[in-house]
Amino acid sequence: MKIARFSHEGTLSYGIVDENELVVLAGDPMFAGFDTTGERVPLGKVSSLLAPVIPRSKVVAVGKNYREHAAEMGGEAPEAPLLFLKPNTAVIGPGDTIVLPPQSKQVDFEGELAVVIGRIAKNVSAQNFADYVFGYTVANDVTARDLQKTDGQWARAKGFDTFCPLGPIIETEFDPSQATLRTRVNGELKQDGVLTDMVHGVAEIVEYASSVWTLLPGDVILTGTPAGVGPIVDGDTVEIEISGIGSLSNPVRARAQ
Amino acid sequence: MKIARFSHEGTLSYGIVDENELVVLAGDPMFAGFDTTGERVPLGKVSSLLAPVIPRSKVVAVGKNYREHAAEMGGEAPEAPLLFLKPNTAVIGPGDTIVLPPQSKQVDFEGELAVVIGRIAKNVSAQNFADYVFGYTVANDVTARDLQKTDGQWARAKGFDTFCPLGPIIETEFDPSQATLRTRVNGELKQDGVLTDMVHGVAEIVEYASSVWTLLPGDVILTGTPAGVGPIVDGDTVEIEISGIGSLSNPVRARAQ
Repeated sequence: MKIARFSHEGTLSYGIVDENELVVLAGDPMFAGFDTTGERVPLGKVSSLLAPVIPRSKVVAVGKNYREHAAEMGGEAPEAPLLFLKPNTAVIGPGDTIVLPPQSKQVDFEGELAVVIGRIAKNVSAQNFADYVFGYTVANDVTARDLQKTDGQWARAKGFDTFCPLGPIIETEFDPSQATLRTRVNGELKQDGVLTDMVHGVAEIVEYASSVWTLLPGDVILTGTPAGVGPIVDGDTVEIEISGIGSLSNPVRARAQ
Repeated sequence: MKIARFSHEGTLSYGIVDENELVVLAGDPMFAGFDTTGERVPLGKVSSLLAPVIPRSKVVAVGKNYREHAAEMGGEAPEAPLLFLKPNTAVIGPGDTIVLPPQSKQVDFEGELAVVIGRIAKNVSAQNFADYVFGYTVANDVTARDLQKTDGQWARAKGFDTFCPLGPIIETEFDPSQATLRTRVNGELKQDGVLTDMVHGVAEIVEYASSVWTLLPGDVILTGTPAGVGPIVDGDTVEIEISGIGSLSNPVRARAQ
């Protein structure tokens, strides 16, 4: 099931994508279930989809979780998941603009699978991880590469406003073991990976992260990026596609000084 | 004005501390102002105060912001504020238990001044910073020192559940230039600093942080710890006192394996 969040005639709603229509839901399905209002809205009548979830607490992310990407960054994949945090103020939706801040001279895209947590999760075992997952979406772990190196801590470099595009929808029945991730900048293929190349898989990441902090419904976990990351500049459009979920596309603009 | 958040007869309320009484407010003063209900509750009748704010978005923290503390960590204070994030799931209130996780062999206290943001803040200049500050409280930036070193990124070491005690109240008219910070473990003095020893002051931190990310009402900024940090173990009580605000005391317990 593909769940979209959208604005229509001044109202924020959730809907199930049914071919070219949205079956409107009575509330946020994460909390209110899948009761429908009976209304159906043609997808073409929705001006744009919104980020399918706004985390109330955390965007957790995993660094260097594909060997070839760790190598292109000049290192190795760590033995345990390397966790960091992005603030929820960085989240934008499909079609929203990634704004390049004046503090950085090199901002990179990083296409990633994102896990959306659906239930309070604390000390969850890997074998039960699926009980705590609401679904999956596509993420761009936008990174000011120069500041990542100079700061040491990644909170600033990966936390700027607009640095966490999410969308276009949440797929509740996604199977990462069958999926590919492709990132294109202005149509040119930059990343072409398979999700099974993750060093630490989704089950292990959920177990590890939930042993540190309580994960709340709506928290999002970015699972790391495959090889092929590179810069985006003013005027670019970056598109990340995960088979079985969809395509997340965002224009890029420089922020006024 | 000292603002407390508390639970009384099953209701969560905010109140102004007036000597030994709480003047009950009609709502969260950050959003609803300071209208009172007319009710007054003796402080002694409130079983315990709660964390005076639960951040909806971020706990921002500044690393190595006192020279002597940077030195005791084996480094120097960085030229620009070194920012990192703690998740809101780490926040606990006065009297709540700091739980030592089994993953760490050394957990340290770090007494700090915390700034509570009151208005949406983006690209705020240092000279206007006070317009965006709701008030100040006391924080303990609890840190798994061993994991901080091995992980590199500090999100896990400083992000465990219960690793961000805040309280006891928010002082809306606090002047950091006149204040001292003292931390005691089981009554023994461990930290004895003056807030004017900060390398980067509150005005500069608010300017810097708000140039990276939008700060939301209820976001909290921890401003760094003076020298004297050290370990806490099962059975300890750690108390951090900032003159003009109050004293934040928390017991410490080991988590079952």
